[in-house]
Amino acid sequence: MSNDEKMVVTPWEVRGKVDYKKLIRQFGTQPITDKLLRRLRKHTGKLHPQLRRKLFFSHRDLDTVLELHEQGRTFVLYTGRGPSGPVHIGHLVPWIFTKYLQEKFKTKLYFQMTDDEKFVIEQNLNLQQTKKFAYENALDLIALGYDSTDTSIIFDVEDIALLYDIALQVAKRITFSTAKAAFGFQDNTNIGWIFWPAMQAVPCFIHKKLTGENLPCLIPAAIDQDPYWRVTRDVAEKLGFYKPAQIHCRFVPGLGIGGKMSAREPETCIFTTDTPEMVKRKIWAAYTGGRSTVKEQKETGGEPDACTVYQYFLYLFEEDDGRIKERARQCRAGENICGDCKALLTERVTDFLLEHQRKREKAKDIIQEFTMRHKTS
Amino acid sequence: MSNDEKMVVTPWEVRGKVDYKKLIRQFGTQPITDKLLRRLRKHTGKLHPQLRRKLFFSHRDLDTVLELHEQGRTFVLYTGRGPSGPVHIGHLVPWIFTKYLQEKFKTKLYFQMTDDEKFVIEQNLNLQQTKKFAYENALDLIALGYDSTDTSIIFDVEDIALLYDIALQVAKRITFSTAKAAFGFQDNTNIGWIFWPAMQAVPCFIHKKLTGENLPCLIPAAIDQDPYWRVTRDVAEKLGFYKPAQIHCRFVPGLGIGGKMSAREPETCIFTTDTPEMVKRKIWAAYTGGRSTVKEQKETGGEPDACTVYQYFLYLFEEDDGRIKERARQCRAGENICGDCKALLTERVTDFLLEHQRKREKAKDIIQEFTMRHKTS
Repeated sequence: MSNDEKMVVTPWEVRGKVDYKKLIRQFGTQPITDKLLRRLRKHTGKLHPQLRRKLFFSHRDLDTVLELHEQGRTFVLYTGRGPSGPVHIGHLVPWIFTKYLQEKFKTKLYFQMTDDEKFVIEQNLNLQQTKKFAYENALDLIALGYDSTDTSIIFDVEDIALLYDIALQVAKRITFSTAKAAFGFQDNTNIGWIFWPAMQAVPCFIHKKLTGENLPCLIPAAIDQDPYWRVTRDVAEKLGFYKPAQIHCRFVPGLGIGGKMSAREPETCIFTTDTPEMVKRKIWAAYTGGRSTVKEQKETGGEPDACTVYQYFLYLFEEDDGRIKERARQCRAGENICGDCKALLTERVTDFLLEHQRKREKAKDIIQEFTMRHKTS
Repeated sequence: MSNDEKMVVTPWEVRGKVDYKKLIRQFGTQPITDKLLRRLRKHTGKLHPQLRRKLFFSHRDLDTVLELHEQGRTFVLYTGRGPSGPVHIGHLVPWIFTKYLQEKFKTKLYFQMTDDEKFVIEQNLNLQQTKKFAYENALDLIALGYDSTDTSIIFDVEDIALLYDIALQVAKRITFSTAKAAFGFQDNTNIGWIFWPAMQAVPCFIHKKLTGENLPCLIPAAIDQDPYWRVTRDVAEKLGFYKPAQIHCRFVPGLGIGGKMSAREPETCIFTTDTPEMVKRKIWAAYTGGRSTVKEQKETGGEPDACTVYQYFLYLFEEDDGRIKERARQCRAGENICGDCKALLTERVTDFLLEHQRKREKAKDIIQEFTMRHKTS
C-alpha cells in the first residue's frame, strides 16, 4: 500500500492517501466547525479528545439533531460492525466515542453486527464464521463498558424476523441504478450484496418499531460508510422517518505505511486479543518515518504527522492535549528518538489491552442482556 | 390483449399467443412424453386429467425424481403463490394437481406464500395488504382438502427467520448479470426485487434444514415460473442439494380473448369468492369464438380450441374424457350453441364454488396447523 496511489474510499476499500477535505466535497457532507463544537460543548461539557483533535471531522444534520435535542426531543445512536475477523484498536476508536455520546446525551444505542453482509461479500467466509466473529466482536464492544439497559446489539441473521419488513420497505425504494452509483456494484456483484444496503438502513428506523416513538438517529462511524446513509436519507422521509444524521471520523492508520488499519494485514494491526509479546513486536516494527541514525534524527527531527506511533497517541493513547503537543514538538526538534515513543506506546497499549481482555472475558457473562432476543422476549 | 402480439412469458407477464412447443425449446425443458406418462402411471394408477390432456406438458428431471423414487428415496413437493390479490380458478388448477401428486406419492408439500415478493414488485400494494392476501389465499389452498400433517405453508415475512440463512447461501452464488439475463432486470428494478429470486429458491432446500433428510424436490407450477428454477438448479449442487425438478403446466386462459387468467382483468376471472350471480354474468360474457347467429353456428360449427368456455371444461369442469371429446365434436359440427355450454359451465362452476366456499370458511379454523410457526414451535 502506498501513499501515492489514487484515493479510493468505499465501504469495502480504503486505498491511497486520504484527503479528508476532498472527501467532504466528494461525499457532500459538512465539516465540523468550531461553532458546532461550541454548541456540542453546551451539552457535553469538556469535549472528547476525538472532537478536540478533529478526528471526528465531518457530519450531516448534526446541527438538526442538536436543535431537536434542545427542543426536548432526543435522538438514538446507531453504529455497527462488519464481523469479518477479530477486532483491532482501529475499530475501538469510534466505539469509544459513541459511548461518550451515549453517556452525555443519555440515548439508546442500536449496534448492528452485519454477519449477513460479511457472508455475502467475503468469498472465503461461511455463515458460521461471520456469526462467530459477530459474537466475538460483541464481547469487545461490551468490554468498553456499555450498559445493557441503553444498548441493544442487533445480530442480523439471528434478528432477521425483526428487521425484514423494514428492509423490504427500504429496498422497494432503491433502484439498482441508485445502488450501483452509490456502491459501485458491477454485473458480477451477487444479489445478496445488492440487497444488503437495505439491511444496513434498518437500525436507523428500528426504534419506532420497538417503542412507537419516532426519533431521529445519529450515526457515528468512519466516513467510508457514508454511501449507505446517502441512500438511506433519500428514502427515510418517504417512509415517515427522520433522515438519519451522521458524524464521520477519520480512519485509524495501520502500523505500516499509509492506509487505514486493516485486519487483512495482521502485522500492521493490534488486535484486542494480542498478547504483550505480539503488541511489542508489532509496535517495534511500526513505520515512524524516523531517520536512519540517531545522529540524523537529532539533527533533522522527525515527522509526527507521518508517524504511525504518534497517530496512536493522538487517537487513543494520550488524552492530555498539552502532552501530545509536547510530544510532537520534541519529535520535530529531534529531542527524542523513535525507540522512546515506541517503548511508551507499547506500555500504554499493553496496559490498555490487559484491562480490556479482563473485561472482555466478563462480557461473556452478560452478552445475553444486550441481544434483541433477550430484549424482545 | 390480442393473440397477434409477440409471445412474452416471464414470471410477471404473459402476453400474446403462447406457443408451448416454442417455450420448451426457449426454456430448454423436456416435453412430457407418452413413455414418461406410462412410467408415472405405474405409481399413480389412472393418470390425472391434467396429465392425460397434456395440460402439464413439460418437465425437468421428472424422470430423475421417478428413478430415485423407484430406488426408495422419495421426494418433496414445492409450489407457491404470489399473493397480490384474490385467488381465481386459474390458480386452483396446478394446486389441484399438486394434491393429486402428494396423495399418489405420499410426499410432503412446502407451499410458499410470497408476500415479500408481491410487496416489492407491486407499486400499489403495501405489506399489510400482501400479508392479508397471503392469509386469504391460504384458505383457498386448504379448502382443496390438503392435510396439515404433510403440508406446510411458508409465509415469507412471518417465516423469514427460518428462510434467511438459506436465501443468503443462494444469493451469494447468483450474480446480477445472471439474474438480469434470467429475469430481465433493468436499472430501475428495485434491490428487493433483485434479491428476491434467492427467496424463491429456499423452499427447494428447506426440508433438509427442518428434518436433516436431503431429498430432491419436484415443483408443479405454470411454466412462466421456470426462470427461477433454472437459476436455482445452477446453485443447488454447490450447496449440497439436489437440483430441483419441475413439472410445468399451461396457463389457464381468462374468459376474454387470449392470455392467461389474470386478476388484473377481473371480469375475465372467476374468483373463488364470486357469488353465483357474478359467475353467471362473467361466463355469459365469455369469449367463445361462436358465430353471430344460431343459424350460422349450426351451419359452420364452432372452434373449441379458441373457446374459453370449452377450456374451462377441459381444465377443470369435465373429468370424463369421452364427454369432453363429444363436446368438442358437437361444437365443431354445429350441434350445440354457445348458450348451452355456458349454461352447463355456469352450473358446474357455481356448484364447485359453493362447496369450495363452504370449505374455505372451515379452513379458518385449521389454517394455524399448516403454518411453520405451528410446526416448528
